[in-house]
Amino acid sequence: MDTEKLIQDLIDNGHKTYIGNLSIDCTIFGYHERRLKVLLLKWKGIEGWSLPGGRIKKTETLQAAAARILQERTGLANIFLKQYQVFGDSDFRVKQPEMTNLLKAMKITVPKNNWLADRTFSIGFYALVEYSEVDPKPDLFTEECNWCDINELPELLFDHNEMVDLAQKTLRQELSYLPIGSNLLPKKFTLPEIHDLYETLLGKSLDRRNFPKKLLALGIIKKLAETRNIGAHRSPFLYRFDMRNYNRALQEGLAVQF
Amino acid sequence: MDTEKLIQDLIDNGHKTYIGNLSIDCTIFGYHERRLKVLLLKWKGIEGWSLPGGRIKKTETLQAAAARILQERTGLANIFLKQYQVFGDSDFRVKQPEMTNLLKAMKITVPKNNWLADRTFSIGFYALVEYSEVDPKPDLFTEECNWCDINELPELLFDHNEMVDLAQKTLRQELSYLPIGSNLLPKKFTLPEIHDLYETLLGKSLDRRNFPKKLLALGIIKKLAETRNIGAHRSPFLYRFDMRNYNRALQEGLAVQF
Repeated sequence: MDTEKLIQDLIDNGHKTYIGNLSIDCTIFGYHERRLKVLLLKWKGIEGWSLPGGRIKKTETLQAAAARILQERTGLANIFLKQYQVFGDSDFRVKQPEMTNLLKAMKITVPKNNWLADRTFSIGFYALVEYSEVDPKPDLFTEECNWCDINELPELLFDHNEMVDLAQKTLRQELSYLPIGSNLLPKKFTLPEIHDLYETLLGKSLDRRNFPKKLLALGIIKKLAETRNIGAHRSPFLYRFDMRNYNRALQEGLAVQF
Repeated sequence: MDTEKLIQDLIDNGHKTYIGNLSIDCTIFGYHERRLKVLLLKWKGIEGWSLPGGRIKKTETLQAAAARILQERTGLANIFLKQYQVFGDSDFRVKQPEMTNLLKAMKITVPKNNWLADRTFSIGFYALVEYSEVDPKPDLFTEECNWCDINELPELLFDHNEMVDLAQKTLRQELSYLPIGSNLLPKKFTLPEIHDLYETLLGKSLDRRNFPKKLLALGIIKKLAETRNIGAHRSPFLYRFDMRNYNRALQEGLAVQF
């Protein structure tokens, strides 16, 4: 089927497959070379960008739905993906004018009593992935899927700027009680590499000496006997995550202040 | 209208007033004399207990819906009430057998295609209130509303034990970056009083000397020139919250490790 037919089928029959009144939107953070980026979709026919999102099938769990949407847009499976907030109070979601205009630009009409025209609450998820592993793919309604630096975000459609802001705030808070980084750093890394990662995510400077001490004290990283030669007689020691402690901390939580 | 007619009206006409597929359940923690309690409802006709909950009106915001449900059950307004997780994956919520049995015990039949028989996702909120200020009231489906010590919870209906567990875990994590206590302690309190509050909420011992130092360093409490006479020549100094710093911390977050 071509896109037009797929969209018409979603309007006509989607209510048989998907849960009404609910959607998922994902803030997918990408980390690469000391920059934090967000995955955005450009809608067809207009200059508008939004977060990737989708609907929940009646037969799937919430987590499975979020994982499916993430995989459809990024090609990545088994990514740490976390709920952080339900959104549903913006004027858009009550009045739906923006969505109607978007679809008009695509020459699509959603009938007034159609399931897609109902007030929709969106469950916000966030994920943190290694930027270069992602193969971004647009969906039915969009024509481009691209990374954007978090400090250079345009005005997004709907309430999606608010979603990104709160996702970033949540991610920063969660760094105090969840370990991160095992999917963002090489298997063996230097202290400056993990230091840069945390500085980028937290958006603040961290002490070069105290920061690694805290991670070592928590037991989530350990020093190896190996060094990496980075030239000019500099050979910093390599470290790796202690995956037993790391996974335990994912389950039980940490308590640390950076 | 009597209860039976109200329930029948909810089954027949509720879909005109309320959002489908979505509900709210509230874990309302009560603090009193060094104990943490949870507000529970006893269902009519069976020995089953659940958390207070309800549906979202099409015309109200999510936060307003949660505040309304809290107020209906407790009589309290303007309570700090926070979303923490969406639940929707338990077998119950897909298959709905437990709900059907509950309603059968009340001689209520929900038709197969009725809006109330649809798969429902529930948005979990939690609140923390001063136990003695609450006037607990049951709802249409329940006959009793009572406090239960969190360490003595029975097996609850649906997935509500899981909801309480995660609410408590979230509350403990949030103590690291949100101030609490202004609605749980007298306006002027002693250091042992706030120490007991945090120990009860965190479920662990806190150092008598270091704990208050941290709160003072954050600027959220301050020492008064007054003392309270508690007999036997003991007159500990009184403290109060610095509400300007407290409210700023509610907005901007703290970073502290207890």
